[in-house]
Amino acid sequence: MKTYDFRKVRITGDWLARLQEQNRLVTIPAIYKQFEQTGRIAAFDMNWKQGEPNQPHIFWDSDNYKWIECAAYTLKEHPDPAVIERIEHLIDAMEAHQCEDGYFNVCFQMFEPQNRFTFRQQHELYCAGHLFEAAVAYAEATGRERLLAVAEKYADCIYRAFVTEKTAKFFTPGHEEIELALVKMYRYTGKKKFLDLAAHFINERGTHDEERNDGYHPEIRSDYNQSLVPVREQTEAVGHCVRALYLYTAMADLALELRDEALEKACRALYRDIVDKKMYVTGGLGSSAFGEAFSNPYDLPNEEAYTETCAGIGLMLFMHRMLALENNAAYADLLERAFYNGVLSGVSLDGKAFFYENPLEITMLNHFTNSWGARRYPLTQRIECFPCSCCPPNLARVISQFGNYLFGSDGDTLYVNQFATAELSDDGVRAVMTTRYPVDGDVSLRVEGKSRVAVRIPGWCASFTADAPYTVENGYAVFANTGAPIRLSFDMKPFAVRARSEVVRDAGRLCIQAGPIVYCAESVDNGANLHALAVSPDFEAKAVADPVSGLLDYDVTGWRRKDPVDALYYRAEEVWEPTVIRLIPYRCFANRGECDMLVWLHKK
Amino acid sequence: MKTYDFRKVRITGDWLARLQEQNRLVTIPAIYKQFEQTGRIAAFDMNWKQGEPNQPHIFWDSDNYKWIECAAYTLKEHPDPAVIERIEHLIDAMEAHQCEDGYFNVCFQMFEPQNRFTFRQQHELYCAGHLFEAAVAYAEATGRERLLAVAEKYADCIYRAFVTEKTAKFFTPGHEEIELALVKMYRYTGKKKFLDLAAHFINERGTHDEERNDGYHPEIRSDYNQSLVPVREQTEAVGHCVRALYLYTAMADLALELRDEALEKACRALYRDIVDKKMYVTGGLGSSAFGEAFSNPYDLPNEEAYTETCAGIGLMLFMHRMLALENNAAYADLLERAFYNGVLSGVSLDGKAFFYENPLEITMLNHFTNSWGARRYPLTQRIECFPCSCCPPNLARVISQFGNYLFGSDGDTLYVNQFATAELSDDGVRAVMTTRYPVDGDVSLRVEGKSRVAVRIPGWCASFTADAPYTVENGYAVFANTGAPIRLSFDMKPFAVRARSEVVRDAGRLCIQAGPIVYCAESVDNGANLHALAVSPDFEAKAVADPVSGLLDYDVTGWRRKDPVDALYYRAEEVWEPTVIRLIPYRCFANRGECDMLVWLHKK
Repeated sequence: MKTYDFRKVRITGDWLARLQEQNRLVTIPAIYKQFEQTGRIAAFDMNWKQGEPNQPHIFWDSDNYKWIECAAYTLKEHPDPAVIERIEHLIDAMEAHQCEDGYFNVCFQMFEPQNRFTFRQQHELYCAGHLFEAAVAYAEATGRERLLAVAEKYADCIYRAFVTEKTAKFFTPGHEEIELALVKMYRYTGKKKFLDLAAHFINERGTHDEERNDGYHPEIRSDYNQSLVPVREQTEAVGHCVRALYLYTAMADLALELRDEALEKACRALYRDIVDKKMYVTGGLGSSAFGEAFSNPYDLPNEEAYTETCAGIGLMLFMHRMLALENNAAYADLLERAFYNGVLSGVSLDGKAFFYENPLEITMLNHFTNSWGARRYPLTQRIECFPCSCCPPNLARVISQFGNYLFGSDGDTLYVNQFATAELSDDGVRAVMTTRYPVDGDVSLRVEGKSRVAVRIPGWCASFTADAPYTVENGYAVFANTGAPIRLSFDMKPFAVRARSEVVRDAGRLCIQAGPIVYCAESVDNGANLHALAVSPDFEAKAVADPVSGLLDYDVTGWRRKDPVDALYYRAEEVWEPTVIRLIPYRCFANRGECDMLVWLHKK
Repeated sequence: MKTYDFRKVRITGDWLARLQEQNRLVTIPAIYKQFEQTGRIAAFDMNWKQGEPNQPHIFWDSDNYKWIECAAYTLKEHPDPAVIERIEHLIDAMEAHQCEDGYFNVCFQMFEPQNRFTFRQQHELYCAGHLFEAAVAYAEATGRERLLAVAEKYADCIYRAFVTEKTAKFFTPGHEEIELALVKMYRYTGKKKFLDLAAHFINERGTHDEERNDGYHPEIRSDYNQSLVPVREQTEAVGHCVRALYLYTAMADLALELRDEALEKACRALYRDIVDKKMYVTGGLGSSAFGEAFSNPYDLPNEEAYTETCAGIGLMLFMHRMLALENNAAYADLLERAFYNGVLSGVSLDGKAFFYENPLEITMLNHFTNSWGARRYPLTQRIECFPCSCCPPNLARVISQFGNYLFGSDGDTLYVNQFATAELSDDGVRAVMTTRYPVDGDVSLRVEGKSRVAVRIPGWCASFTADAPYTVENGYAVFANTGAPIRLSFDMKPFAVRARSEVVRDAGRLCIQAGPIVYCAESVDNGANLHALAVSPDFEAKAVADPVSGLLDYDVTGWRRKDPVDALYYRAEEVWEPTVIRLIPYRCFANRGECDMLVWLHKK
């Protein structure tokens, strides 16, 4: 299907509109403030001097670009002059310092201009990619194309260095990102050169012996950045998760643009590998903190989960592109799972602080810091800015562009992929959706300009009702459009989820889900030792509205284990007392001080 | 109680005699061969030259000493001339190279003689301690005192450097060991100077600001080697486990020798901290591989357990000394738990290969090696020699001196602390014990020369019978000795053990124990995915004799979980099929190829 982008879709009310509003009014300014305070914004002036604080870092260009991008998406509906001024100021600096030949990278220009395009791992092309995405977003939202001109000039420079003149010392990016960004440039400008360059990078990957062990990290196997085999031969998701997902996203983009079946087949295989073997129930990806990477099938440790916020966002991007390749509700399901759980957990309920890693289990007692000061597990509290602060603006741009994910079109059918109170308006097609989703499962739709309406039946949904006849196609309930409202109601009652038996860390455990939302228990509600709690699959649940998150908490029936004797190990029987367990949406964890948290509850 | 040492006790038959025989005929020669091949033996000739393989290492002296010690214990009953020749050859080399003033350390003499007693972390005093232990063992077993002369001369040198002349650049050993060794020297020679030096090191520990951050590892907090506070103020077991247990052993020795109540109180507190909060069910110690260390209370991860073989041995040594301080069967229980489980697991059933770490859970699928080649979990197969090969000779010396742990005496009471077919003969006291323990629980005793016989009632034992009346004192069944045989029978039926609820990694799990032996399941017997198996506490068990280990395996009733649908996560019900689970003694794991292993089974 063709999906409608944010320029055609307005989220007009209810939960997602409030989230977008907080993102625009709190999160995006908070990130800017952090980037200003840490010297990222000033870095574009290229006047940092040795000995001063805040030496520009190789990642920082991309942080600024992602901030421009997340801010740009808000400008379509809220053309705030102060935001535009901040962006224009950055563009001024870029124009002033962009090289004659189009090159732009703060660190290389300032510290080692002679080493341009020399070190594969130094994120030059990654930063360029985020520039291209920002430029397209700003142009789409405002019509302003000054940043796009900077981007095009730089893209031309890269094209020469890697394709025509081949002056670059490596062949493909150490960190993928530019590929999907070049597709965006192509789609906006229509210039095929950008598509060609994206295809060039995709096609070259995994074909160069030199890139199996690159000079920067010679000790790293090339599966780290998916360079072990050509992309069309890749069937298993490996290596650094964010790199991987950005690559897969671009592969799906190109499969669509070039009608490349081998590429599409590889995308499907990678998707299946992730969804069948390597994904947390929260949609989080990455079991190994070391390498920020995928690991073996079914190796999904909860306490030491890496699950970078950006990796979950990468999964959303990949699923968005897969949906464009194939009308299959499963892709929209996965996008939804990642968004409402392992992605949104990346930002605090007040919108100001962020997780890089999103573990599924915290036991503070296990958070031993050894004599070396080494930390065994991820942070337990969100912070405002990281030394590598990729996640905060990435999350902000996903929230502000969420309109991209709602609607799609194929022939005479309008597709509804995600649920929000929203309006679509595009060239004779109009849709109005009203829902309190994800707080309840009632959805009302009115559509004009299409004869069929296909509404995703969420994968988590065991039963639903509709007030009109429908057929089921690829996970969608398809209605003939009479112009009259279509009303559906999805059963949002909490239910117990099992992980398949190969996931050894979840053996003997259940996770509670309601609608798309995965729940967890926190010790601030339930007292010490969440592992002494147990639930049975036929628990009873009472919804409790939470005014802070705007979501539902649940009180579920369960038990608490008591030790009958005072010994570390004993042969006596266990004693269980009935109790009520307060569950909160996973995305809300760690908002009331440092405490234990558990997604996979023990099963009684 | 006063415990009888190996000079008075002969293990004459059955399981423990066979273990000792294998240790003498296979393990001890195999370790010697490894030490010869890796250059450790030749290092004492001090003629290694730059560019040659096998550069002497700072730990190696102690490896040789521990080999002498384990071999020496066997000489009492088996005075093998070939073994004596190997030991005498090493003594020749030591005599030839010992410094005029008594100093002896291969690496410092060869590479940096000017830095003698300068680097606290460089194991000089640790090596010296193992020399002293070897010298005493060899003298006790054979009457030969040439090595003891080397040891005494070196001890005098150390006394001058640390006490009288104070030329040493630090105050206390970075790795404890010399303290307990000096007590042995004192007990054998009667020279109070050695006891004084032991007390000096114990009393100085934790009193010097300089030793809170030593020069060698400035990044290490001083709890790493128990130097944060004076020893009498220590109440929590912290830091490197082997260091800690060697310290506690010496503290208990000194508490006894000096009737030092403050020291005894600290020993009791440290014992309680370990036994109540920081010990694996196998008697293994050390939850953190990083630092080889204790961590927080109840933090006892199974898969990443550190549980060094030497730490379990340290626990045995500590418990042996605590029993000397107080007639309490609990200490002997703990010594037994460590020995039959987490210590003996350190050696393969063929006696030739060794574990350094003894994890309680292996899932090969989780053994991900990332793009950097980093290993997340301990080795899954024993190997013949480690770069730091402290464990193999340590284990061999514990087996060959096991006679030390059987009997004790206090007034007119003979204590039976451990069970084996054995004879005690000492100055009018004679005891003959006959048992197939740990294969069954029948024990027969005949004692002369004591009017009371106190037999430990094992802590794991829920019921036992005796053919004579008894009273219970401090965990011992106390019989009036008529000279007639006393027969006891301990119920060895397998039972389920729970960990208390704070041990989150064992929540929802059971471990099966029979007698002192902790059991585990291996995938070589039970097929893939041991986490899909479950048992209930009221399982039925059938014993199966294992001719290789000489112990009993068990077939227990249980279930295997089947996934009803083909998805990573699902809301369908679980399906359980009845099955039989083969359990083997934990010490036997990893003897039939690399496979999954599980101590804590899931509870149905």
